[in-house]
Amino acid sequence: MHKNAAALVALSLSVSTTALAAPNHADIALDKDTIAWDFVEGITTEVGPRLAGTEAEARGRSWARDWLNANGFVNVAIEPYMMGSWMRGTETAEIIAPFPQKFHVAALGGSASTGAEGITAEVVYFKTVDDLRAAPAGSLQGKIAYISHSMTRTQDGSQYGFAGPARWVGAGIAASKGAAASIIKSVGTDSHRNPHTGGTSFPAGIAPIPAGAISLPDAANLERMFAHSKGKPVTLKLVLTPTDLGQTESGNVVGEIVGKDPSLPPVLLACHLDSWDLGTGAIDNAAGCAIISAAARHVQMQGQPLRTVRVLFAGAEETGLWGSKAYSAAHKDAQKMAVGIESDFGADRIWRMDTNFGASNPDLVKKLAAAVARFGVAPGTQIATGGADINIVRDQGGAILDLQQDGTRYFDLHHTPDDTLDKIDPAQLRQNVAVWTAVVNVLANEAGPIDGK
Amino acid sequence: MHKNAAALVALSLSVSTTALAAPNHADIALDKDTIAWDFVEGITTEVGPRLAGTEAEARGRSWARDWLNANGFVNVAIEPYMMGSWMRGTETAEIIAPFPQKFHVAALGGSASTGAEGITAEVVYFKTVDDLRAAPAGSLQGKIAYISHSMTRTQDGSQYGFAGPARWVGAGIAASKGAAASIIKSVGTDSHRNPHTGGTSFPAGIAPIPAGAISLPDAANLERMFAHSKGKPVTLKLVLTPTDLGQTESGNVVGEIVGKDPSLPPVLLACHLDSWDLGTGAIDNAAGCAIISAAARHVQMQGQPLRTVRVLFAGAEETGLWGSKAYSAAHKDAQKMAVGIESDFGADRIWRMDTNFGASNPDLVKKLAAAVARFGVAPGTQIATGGADINIVRDQGGAILDLQQDGTRYFDLHHTPDDTLDKIDPAQLRQNVAVWTAVVNVLANEAGPIDGK
Repeated sequence: MHKNAAALVALSLSVSTTALAAPNHADIALDKDTIAWDFVEGITTEVGPRLAGTEAEARGRSWARDWLNANGFVNVAIEPYMMGSWMRGTETAEIIAPFPQKFHVAALGGSASTGAEGITAEVVYFKTVDDLRAAPAGSLQGKIAYISHSMTRTQDGSQYGFAGPARWVGAGIAASKGAAASIIKSVGTDSHRNPHTGGTSFPAGIAPIPAGAISLPDAANLERMFAHSKGKPVTLKLVLTPTDLGQTESGNVVGEIVGKDPSLPPVLLACHLDSWDLGTGAIDNAAGCAIISAAARHVQMQGQPLRTVRVLFAGAEETGLWGSKAYSAAHKDAQKMAVGIESDFGADRIWRMDTNFGASNPDLVKKLAAAVARFGVAPGTQIATGGADINIVRDQGGAILDLQQDGTRYFDLHHTPDDTLDKIDPAQLRQNVAVWTAVVNVLANEAGPIDGK
Repeated sequence: MHKNAAALVALSLSVSTTALAAPNHADIALDKDTIAWDFVEGITTEVGPRLAGTEAEARGRSWARDWLNANGFVNVAIEPYMMGSWMRGTETAEIIAPFPQKFHVAALGGSASTGAEGITAEVVYFKTVDDLRAAPAGSLQGKIAYISHSMTRTQDGSQYGFAGPARWVGAGIAASKGAAASIIKSVGTDSHRNPHTGGTSFPAGIAPIPAGAISLPDAANLERMFAHSKGKPVTLKLVLTPTDLGQTESGNVVGEIVGKDPSLPPVLLACHLDSWDLGTGAIDNAAGCAIISAAARHVQMQGQPLRTVRVLFAGAEETGLWGSKAYSAAHKDAQKMAVGIESDFGADRIWRMDTNFGASNPDLVKKLAAAVARFGVAPGTQIATGGADINIVRDQGGAILDLQQDGTRYFDLHHTPDDTLDKIDPAQLRQNVAVWTAVVNVLANEAGPIDGK
């Protein structure tokens, strides 16, 4: 595709505010970008998993700070804050009867501990979260609730909205009905023996219980056991020994490409630097930080932009959006951001662009659409709402732009041990950088107003 | 394809020895077989992993005996024998410096223990087994050898011959040069955090060392660490605590479809019932036992065959072919088998048929080729040598037939936790049953001689 795209450069440049003679760095990125790949390759190799609030996340911050300093960014800083942290311990799950065999399990963030001796109890099968909600009060006393609630693949990731509650609130509902523990079918779309972790939470006044996720093949096996057991109880021994670490230090990492007119509201590009602990955080979300940083660099190489471009690598997104909240609290009353964009949905290609832009600059969306069309990105009909790491922009009532990535295989990997470098398709990663470069180039060189609705 | 195939039935039947009026069970199997699926579904759900010499393998034998009795087989028996057994313990692998992070590791069968405290040592990188062979004597003293030796996908599985030695003999070579332990890149073709286990062996006079396999993404990460470390040593903490169980009981399971003339040499269909402990042994090798049993049943449903068809579910194949050796030792001087066929390469489609048939019955291979052509199986040019579980046929100098399966994705799953039911494609499983039914139908009804070369 990018050979044909070259022929279309003139069309795009005709509406661009940059010099026509300059090389177009969006096209260069599509063909040749290595910045984004090198970022992900580097951090997954030299740091690996970066669980929020741990020394591994701190090593990630140091690595990112050094990388930004070495790659043309200025005003690079680590902005620390304190947060409640949690760390996984031993985790095993083993069917005791009627069909003894072991499952692959991972504790959910916020899970209580079973103690080293574990909990051995009958499993009660709920097909959906609503079925669990319908269980009578106290009916799960001393039992382990299992929630199935299957997820399917969607390009836009919208099935996460359906399937997510099994993880987000399932354990809390089970606890409120007296369950000793809960396990869920992993919220994911793969078929590997890799559980999907992620946070869970408990309602006020409900004491946390041990809460795990089993891999999808194990969940299918457990469901078959219910079909084969002829009414005999299915008994599980569950051992999860996570630790509540209390308040520990986390932090955000920021850096800038300074614009010709730093008094103009900057363009904020955001991602998160922390990851769950099972994988190396390649797609979630080193790729996002790589994409936004590579795009900022390409815009800089295109020529100093009019507005400052700021990158925010937020900390502790996975365990409660702590970094984004801390960043907003610290900066929302300072200079207003013109517009915020976040990359946090893997490294597969961008296919749609949405904005929440207001009526003050009607040509801006047209310029943006023209700049990204040749990369296969269509204008969307949704109002952009932004991601978790641009809280500051929402808190300031600023403009938001969403670059929607193809999420078809995202939930195969999300929060699993399999979130590793080899899952990133270099060609799709470059398409992300190209689209971001095109978008940031337009926004950072926009002299007119950039306002949200 | 199977709709077109129906039109070709007449062609096949014109060379068949069975009654033209009877329904053709090979075609029925292709469309509708549920026997094989139900076998794999049942044993992976109700038994799961079946490590040789353990109580789990014994539960597998009981399950299989009951299944054969319930599905029309006679002379069903468990034939026990003793063998040396081994069981996995704790297993962790963690880079200590320069880039701390954890890997997914599995001990290889026959590995020694590191002790609970583990071994922490510098890793020495060998790209191939030959590079390891070239290392000077004593040069690995106190170090951990890492052997890369990458595998690629092949339809016929022949790359296992290239890549296998890393696992089969790598640890032994490393031990002979003084290594404290060895790890290999998993012998496999996937990209998931699931190590591939399997047996390793040590030369006479060389004491076993701890020997593990790391997952392919971890191996790629380790190799990147060497590229990033700028000459600094890469240090690994390895904990592997397997146990040598000494002599324990294993066993073979046999059953028969008795032919009209039991004095004629029977047709032997073989598979192995044990599995490695990480997965549930779905493709390796419940599928094989399912395919041969379903085919025997379809031949029986077609009408009582001329010759007896015997199924042999061998025990303890994975850890040293103990079941097959025991079966041959017990039976090789009894009735000679006419011909042996084994299914032990997953559940993907059969694409080629080879035999070692002699000149005594020149029409037989033609009959077989005609019977399987419509299922997409071509005659091969190789001399069939048979698999691990038909030792008795080789020991008796009997005829052998090989039905070659598509192994393109077999080594994605081989010996991993991911060897689970969901990896089996029901349509390809039915094609296997159809081809086997066609072949066994010809062989079991062959009045003429069936001889190997």
